[in-house]
Amino acid sequence: MISFEKAVSIVQNSCKKMDIEEVELHQLLGRVLALDVVSDMNMPPFDKSAVDGFACRKSNITEQLEVIEVVPAGKLPREEVGEHQCTKIMTGAMMPKGADCVIMIEDTAQVDCLHIRYKKDTVKNNICLLGEDMKTGQVAISAGVAIQPQHIAVLAALGYTKVAVYQKPRVAILSTGDELVEPSKKPELGQIRNSNGHQLVAQVLRAGCIPNYMGIVEDNERVTFNAIKKAIDENDMLLLTGGVSMGDYDFVPSVLTRCGVDLLFDRVAVQPGKPTTFGKTDSGKMVFGLPGNPVSSFAQFELLVRPALEKMMGEKPKELFKKMRLSTDYHRKHAERLAFVPATISQSGEVTPTEYHGSAHIFSLPNSQGLLAVPLGIYELKKGEEVDVRPI
Amino acid sequence: MISFEKAVSIVQNSCKKMDIEEVELHQLLGRVLALDVVSDMNMPPFDKSAVDGFACRKSNITEQLEVIEVVPAGKLPREEVGEHQCTKIMTGAMMPKGADCVIMIEDTAQVDCLHIRYKKDTVKNNICLLGEDMKTGQVAISAGVAIQPQHIAVLAALGYTKVAVYQKPRVAILSTGDELVEPSKKPELGQIRNSNGHQLVAQVLRAGCIPNYMGIVEDNERVTFNAIKKAIDENDMLLLTGGVSMGDYDFVPSVLTRCGVDLLFDRVAVQPGKPTTFGKTDSGKMVFGLPGNPVSSFAQFELLVRPALEKMMGEKPKELFKKMRLSTDYHRKHAERLAFVPATISQSGEVTPTEYHGSAHIFSLPNSQGLLAVPLGIYELKKGEEVDVRPI
Repeated sequence: MISFEKAVSIVQNSCKKMDIEEVELHQLLGRVLALDVVSDMNMPPFDKSAVDGFACRKSNITEQLEVIEVVPAGKLPREEVGEHQCTKIMTGAMMPKGADCVIMIEDTAQVDCLHIRYKKDTVKNNICLLGEDMKTGQVAISAGVAIQPQHIAVLAALGYTKVAVYQKPRVAILSTGDELVEPSKKPELGQIRNSNGHQLVAQVLRAGCIPNYMGIVEDNERVTFNAIKKAIDENDMLLLTGGVSMGDYDFVPSVLTRCGVDLLFDRVAVQPGKPTTFGKTDSGKMVFGLPGNPVSSFAQFELLVRPALEKMMGEKPKELFKKMRLSTDYHRKHAERLAFVPATISQSGEVTPTEYHGSAHIFSLPNSQGLLAVPLGIYELKKGEEVDVRPI
Repeated sequence: MISFEKAVSIVQNSCKKMDIEEVELHQLLGRVLALDVVSDMNMPPFDKSAVDGFACRKSNITEQLEVIEVVPAGKLPREEVGEHQCTKIMTGAMMPKGADCVIMIEDTAQVDCLHIRYKKDTVKNNICLLGEDMKTGQVAISAGVAIQPQHIAVLAALGYTKVAVYQKPRVAILSTGDELVEPSKKPELGQIRNSNGHQLVAQVLRAGCIPNYMGIVEDNERVTFNAIKKAIDENDMLLLTGGVSMGDYDFVPSVLTRCGVDLLFDRVAVQPGKPTTFGKTDSGKMVFGLPGNPVSSFAQFELLVRPALEKMMGEKPKELFKKMRLSTDYHRKHAERLAFVPATISQSGEVTPTEYHGSAHIFSLPNSQGLLAVPLGIYELKKGEEVDVRPI
């Protein structure tokens, strides 16, 4: 049995980056940039007005001003502003020569059809200076960033209509166990509906990858071998669920070996999720054997698998945990494993363990927003203590 | 000009719920449940083992035990466990009659081919009791929940292969302004690439809705009327960007009125985003006029539009803000508006304002994780103070 930290490190060191592809602007959400995005221009590209108003000289603002030009949107000022003159411009328009400020339209009064007057006696510049936001050649967004809407605005502003990103990993999901039936069937005594497999499909989707659900494989060595081989051949990663605890009928590890998977660990000092198995093939395909219990499977996906997928997609390493305050005392009877306890997170970031009956307790997760980490060797956590939480 | 709180309340009161549709399990991520999910069975459906091991009587654990049966996965125990007897079962298997605990396989030794011995002297029950997680008829997930992977597990376990959810709103995005060019063009002097429109497409997608990008409309009243009318007819919501500040060439409000839009506000005491406009038609279509600056447009989408989309999709109201601690002093010169300042959020939830040159400063957002709210009338916030932050 290895520590959770060791397991994380083995998995992270086994990740192979995906190939790069070009993707269009409207399909980029969540994708990871493969190359730095560099600016092809100064932003703003010229001194521009920050407000709707009249561009003039600061030294003239107490006096009546002659309107010498009105600049429509998308047009350039042609006249130079002289003493006691002004040009009517809109937000974002280029500053006319000769002006050093813009007085806001709301603060002016029309004197006659050619003249206006400023109603205040102080003024800000109200100018955005050439290149103040971004200079030509500067890196605007660096490789390894997962693209959010605010990045799309930058990409659009810099003229990127297609962007190089890492391909999405294809992830096969295969459930094992003769006690499993699909959700469409009413389980008979001794049977249980497959929940893990479908939960993993949604977890893979949420991680921005492509799930490939392969159903429940019969507890039969030949059938299992064929299914696992096909899954490895056609995908970048295989998630097995069930069939990895110490029960009988467990030929999965030997089948994996026959499929060319080098098993790197088969149990982790973590709760829930001790029987988590991991290996990889020579060609860099990764295989996780996730525990049969839904909470274990969920947690090990979020803690081990998701960061691996993020690394495969070229994403910069992120902190696994956030630091939060515990709202209540917590204690446990055994401390030989790092534990993850489903927990709620309040508006102010306080964390409270959820009612939790163990790793089969599927109903503990829907109302939880995080997994509270209880370190190995620690029996008690005190109210107000800073703890590690993985948001889910 | 109305307060931000008033604007939120007007928008929220204008939201009309979407119709309901049935969606399959693997397409449910992010969708909002329209009906309560009720359990059709007790979970677990019988007393089951929580571990791989031997079911026996607690009073017998110090003695050698006869293995009377081995129960494969998916099969039921047939024999009743008597004194000094045990049944080998796997995690999740039904408890045989006569047993009141399961000793873990790791803690046992084989004595001969028919007998085992427990190596410890205390034992937990290691039994999950019938119905301890969920009882028949109990509400497992209530209507209004946005479905995450952990809900998918519950739905699968309860036999839901299709689920009633609210339809995704269709959201048209229309940009106005002759100074705009699409990202594929290199802007000439006085022009600027359209970034808002594409940012809004991504924001709508991230909100779980269907964006319908309609491009840049020419600054011409007839063309604008036709585009807005079509957008309103074919979508549930229209987002206009640009064309809503006090400049000339601004016939958008009158065009909206001619399209049957009842304008409910046209400026909000918020910074950035003062010129935000909102209205709705008799049939419940919503129209937002968002400011032309990308930070303003981004912020007003997250603060006003997204909560509206969530309400249309039937989602339970969520807190708009999280409470966080400020890492540094903050001050500003004017306080007549509620301000939102791009800010980073640390691993421990401390918030720090980002370098920010104003609402056209598109590069302030990519490295920010939140918008820090500075209340109306407040000039200073102190380091360590609890503040409202909208994560972005």
